[in-house]
Amino acid sequence: MEFSSKLLEKAVNEMAQLPGIGKRTALRLVLHLLKQPSEQTHYLSQALTTMRDDVKFCKNCHNISDVEVCEICSNTSRNHKIICVVEDIRDVMAIENTNQFKGIYHVLGGKISPIDGVGPSQLNISTLVSKVKMGVIDEIIFALSSTMEGDTTNFYVYKQLKEFNVKTSTIARGIAVGDELEYADEVTLGRSIVQRVPFEISLKNN
Amino acid sequence: MEFSSKLLEKAVNEMAQLPGIGKRTALRLVLHLLKQPSEQTHYLSQALTTMRDDVKFCKNCHNISDVEVCEICSNTSRNHKIICVVEDIRDVMAIENTNQFKGIYHVLGGKISPIDGVGPSQLNISTLVSKVKMGVIDEIIFALSSTMEGDTTNFYVYKQLKEFNVKTSTIARGIAVGDELEYADEVTLGRSIVQRVPFEISLKNN
Ligand SMILES: [Zn+2]
Ligand SMILES: [Zn+2]
Repeated sequence: MEFSSKLLEKAVNEMAQLPGIGKRTALRLVLHLLKQPSEQTHYLSQALTTMRDDVKFCKNCHNISDVEVCEICSNTSRNHKIICVVEDIRDVMAIENTNQFKGIYHVLGGKISPIDGVGPSQLNISTLVSKVKMGVIDEIIFALSSTMEGDTTNFYVYKQLKEFNVKTSTIARGIAVGDELEYADEVTLGRSIVQRVPFEISLKNN
Repeated sequence: MEFSSKLLEKAVNEMAQLPGIGKRTALRLVLHLLKQPSEQTHYLSQALTTMRDDVKFCKNCHNISDVEVCEICSNTSRNHKIICVVEDIRDVMAIENTNQFKGIYHVLGGKISPIDGVGPSQLNISTLVSKVKMGVIDEIIFALSSTMEGDTTNFYVYKQLKEFNVKTSTIARGIAVGDELEYADEVTLGRSIVQRVPFEISLKNN
C-alpha cells in the first residue's frame, strides 16, 4: 500500500496492530475518522489512553474495575463461598447477564496455551489456590470453554485445588435452549444424554 | 452489556462508533489493548489525533497529503492535462498501484447519495469544473464505481463539464483478468462483448 501521507500511513499502521484488523479495514476506519468532526478522534483517543492508564484489576477476583475491589466482590448480599472460575472478564459479563449466579468470580486472565506461549504462571492461579487453602470456600465452579486449552487449564487448576478437598463442579454442557436436536454436534448431544437431569429439576429452571 | 468499569465502558463505546465495529468487537479490541504494554495504546491514540489534526488535503486534487500540494500534483513528469476523477483517496492508491496511469487525479470525496444526505455541493465538483473551464485539460477520465450512486455522480459531473467540450472517457468494464467467463455476472459479460477492443490493442497491454 502506497500512502500519499505519512501521517495517514502511521495511523493506519497503528490501527492495523489490533487483532482482526487488516490494513484495508484500518484504512477504512481511519478515513472514516477524517470525515467526522475532529472531536470524535479526540474522544476515542482520550477514552483509550485513560482506560489503559487508569483501569484497575480487582485485587480479589482480577475482574476489571475502577476501584480496588470490584462491585461484585464488595457486594455483601452475594455468596462469597461459591467461586466461579472464568477465563476472561467477558465471561463474567456473560454470566452476570443471566442473573442466575449469586456467588463471586475468579478471573484467570486467559488459558494455558503453549502455542501462544501462555503457561500457568502467567494466569491468576496462585491467588485462587490461596483462597481455597484458607478453607472458607464451599464450592469452585469451573466455567472454562470446552476447548483443548480450556480443558487443559481446567485440569491444571483442579489438580492444584484437589488436596484441599474443596467441592468442585463444572457448568453443564448440552443442547442450547431452543436448539433443534438434529443440528447439534455429536459430542454435545452425547454429553447431554449422559449428564441428563431429573425431569422435576428441569421443570424448576423454567 | 453490563460493564464492571466505567473507563472500560467508555472506551468500548467510543470504539463501537467506528463503522462495522459492533460492541462485541470493540470489547475484544479494547481488552487486547489492556493486555499489551500501555505504549501500544499511547502510540495508537497519538497517531490518530496527530493524523486527524495535521493531515492536509491537496489544494489541487483533494488527495490526502502532508503538504499543501500532493506529491502526484507536484510531479512535473506527470501529464497534468489528463485528469482521472475518483470518489475516494483509496481509488487513487489502487490506480497508482497499477503503475498504468501517468496523469493526475481529482478526488470528489464521495458520491451523490440522497439516502446518506450527500448532495453535489458536498463533493469537490466546482474545483474540477473551474480547471476544465480554463481550457488547459485534454481529457477527463471517470473512474467512479458502477453502482447507481456512482453512475448518478458520473452523469452529474459529466453534465457540468459538457459545455466546455472537453474529451471525457470512463474506465473499461469487463471480465477481470484471470476470471472464468462462466462465473461472470451477465451485465459485466454483456458490456465486455459490446465494448470489445481490437485484438491488436489487447496484445499491447499484456
Ligand atoms: Zn472482584
Ligand atoms: Zn494533488
